[in-house]
Amino acid sequence: MRKVYVLGAGMTRFGKFLDRSMKDLAGEAVRSALDDAGLALSDLRAAFVGNATQGLITGQEMVRGQVVLRELGLGGLPIVNVENACASSSTALNLGWQGVAGGFYDCALVLGMEKLYHEDKKRSFAALGAAVDVELIAALKEMMASDTGRGTGETEGAGTKRSMFMDFYAMAARQHMQRYGTTKEQFAKIAAKNSFHGSLNPKAQYQEEKSVADVLASPVVAEPLHRLMCSPIGDGAAAVVLVSEDFLAALERRNHIHPKPVAIRASVLLSGFDRSPDEPDPVARAAKVAYERAGIGPEDIDLAEVHDASAPAELMIYEELGFCRPGEGGRLVEEGVTRLGGSKPVNTSGGLIAKGHPVGATGAAQICELVEQLRGVAGKRQVPGAKVGLAENAGGVVRAEPAAVAVHILAV
Amino acid sequence: MRKVYVLGAGMTRFGKFLDRSMKDLAGEAVRSALDDAGLALSDLRAAFVGNATQGLITGQEMVRGQVVLRELGLGGLPIVNVENACASSSTALNLGWQGVAGGFYDCALVLGMEKLYHEDKKRSFAALGAAVDVELIAALKEMMASDTGRGTGETEGAGTKRSMFMDFYAMAARQHMQRYGTTKEQFAKIAAKNSFHGSLNPKAQYQEEKSVADVLASPVVAEPLHRLMCSPIGDGAAAVVLVSEDFLAALERRNHIHPKPVAIRASVLLSGFDRSPDEPDPVARAAKVAYERAGIGPEDIDLAEVHDASAPAELMIYEELGFCRPGEGGRLVEEGVTRLGGSKPVNTSGGLIAKGHPVGATGAAQICELVEQLRGVAGKRQVPGAKVGLAENAGGVVRAEPAAVAVHILAV
Repeated sequence: MRKVYVLGAGMTRFGKFLDRSMKDLAGEAVRSALDDAGLALSDLRAAFVGNATQGLITGQEMVRGQVVLRELGLGGLPIVNVENACASSSTALNLGWQGVAGGFYDCALVLGMEKLYHEDKKRSFAALGAAVDVELIAALKEMMASDTGRGTGETEGAGTKRSMFMDFYAMAARQHMQRYGTTKEQFAKIAAKNSFHGSLNPKAQYQEEKSVADVLASPVVAEPLHRLMCSPIGDGAAAVVLVSEDFLAALERRNHIHPKPVAIRASVLLSGFDRSPDEPDPVARAAKVAYERAGIGPEDIDLAEVHDASAPAELMIYEELGFCRPGEGGRLVEEGVTRLGGSKPVNTSGGLIAKGHPVGATGAAQICELVEQLRGVAGKRQVPGAKVGLAENAGGVVRAEPAAVAVHILAV
Repeated sequence: MRKVYVLGAGMTRFGKFLDRSMKDLAGEAVRSALDDAGLALSDLRAAFVGNATQGLITGQEMVRGQVVLRELGLGGLPIVNVENACASSSTALNLGWQGVAGGFYDCALVLGMEKLYHEDKKRSFAALGAAVDVELIAALKEMMASDTGRGTGETEGAGTKRSMFMDFYAMAARQHMQRYGTTKEQFAKIAAKNSFHGSLNPKAQYQEEKSVADVLASPVVAEPLHRLMCSPIGDGAAAVVLVSEDFLAALERRNHIHPKPVAIRASVLLSGFDRSPDEPDPVARAAKVAYERAGIGPEDIDLAEVHDASAPAELMIYEELGFCRPGEGGRLVEEGVTRLGGSKPVNTSGGLIAKGHPVGATGAAQICELVEQLRGVAGKRQVPGAKVGLAENAGGVVRAEPAAVAVHILAV
């Protein structure tokens, strides 16, 4: 298996871009990643394109990658359209890594893109609702209703005021609070931290720092979730260019100018599974495999980008990734461990909460942040001396488990 | 790169199954392929799932594979949802082949599935219309209108009486007739041949043999296309189980009982590209690469399953695959070369026209037919002594070129 490097990474700012087309956003990300690598469209040998909701937003299905890439003049190569809900572009990255590591391609493009905003916001939420077993939505709603707590009674499923995922996150948060004494203030601290990180990131959708008081003053979505603890709807695109060690060596022989290559030390993708409550959940399982493949442990991770679709999710992910023991996520927050300046900063980009969450673009955007950090060019957000970064991205819910979980470990 | 074998293949009958769910159809195909291989769900290490239109038919997006596979009890492994219009499951096959050949998995599932029938037939046609650049549909319609010939004036795009693809095929057919003197009767002979082949295939959607006169008596869709020259709408699923040479050797060491393994000698996927009219089209280009990788030429192919979305398409594919020279497709038909009993039977399954075309399932179903033939168990459809088979599957149209073309060469 060949070593694979990220040589280029680029993304649009995330935000609300009703006036920009998917072609426009994707084009900016692809050109930016290629420029970053000092490579041309003609260097690419395959493209893996992640998108989640375009079919339900604009009606464009089946050939979404071709539509945006042919517009740029890219054709002839394999173009694979990948969907895995919020983990769509980390799934595309896993495929791109396989294609390069397996010796099939020397240079591959991974693109994640999403336009989630629509004049009719209900359509955006409805589209997100397709990341579950639509036949089972009714059953899931029933499960929610049987749980206690404000907010769930207001749920109207996938099609209305908010994503049903927030009810799911709220339920998990309440369970964590009951079991470990985790507090709502700790969740608010995560949201405030990510807003601070986002305030340092010119690509973030929200760049205004929020205090814990601000977060707790924002409307309740479903107890204990307040609006500012939740990732917003967003538009955007992110792309990375992968190269093989051989290709990189050939570039270097001809004195090609390019930034510091960032190695992919592990790429793990898996789906949820039927398990007893004692078994490690899919994120913990994916992380364990990733650590094994990279030959490191959680203590070696300098920074991480994780799937903070909600602030409580980030806290639980600390535990699943082994950054602390189960139940200690709250302590990590209190000690500022995961804040810039702490010993293990998490979501220095602002995360899904502040950087934004155009779902199909999120996985690739996490990689963009890690690449900047590991190159040492993240400016005000720089984690000093960062050598190893981890990205965790999850998507969809099927049978009460994440449908897809991806963990990548990158290093310089 | 490791050798990869198809050890199991299974499919549902294709047809109109308004009363069967996607889970039901996919489950039948997966169980059938695993039973065929003598393997269990627990042997699988990855799953690649192709589907094209479910989002627009039922609203299920993003996690389509997880929804059907978790229902069977399959979880924990990577599940990748792939879309490439009518080439969705051959794209999934290309990924599965890469995963196994590259040493990432020893045993992988490739599943193609589609439920295209809907109580409201307009929805089915509208869903198919998403296999183009939806922003450019208007432009494409304009291009069609500028071409001469009956039928185009009736086109109402993607949302109404028929798939706009048939206008595209009709235009190409008229050009072939003008340039080479190909006749409508020759197209009808292909449709009649495929209906004859379908009459021998218990999995075919249409099992009634049609004569050339029947074909020409069927309503005109768009000159020179008659209805019986066109692939129908359909539901169905098809699955194949891929194994590495190492895994196969291990099975054999423990005297595992399984059918004859069929080797994948070449797996080529590419997208359309901007080209001058003199350059080989994407099908010809994909075939050329596939022949090179397999170390053979078109003369070595014993039988082929090709993308006869319309009868004229099949005739042109003969030429693109090098079964004859450009313009000689009509001659091949007249001589019966591609009919069972001829020297190079094409679409012995009945092809898309008679076996049916549940779009996401088509690529995997082509492999099911080749596997049966190469094992020598195709019964009345058996091509005597078949050793090498080719599958050609194409999908979508972007910038007047196929969005995706896949060519696979299988051999025993």
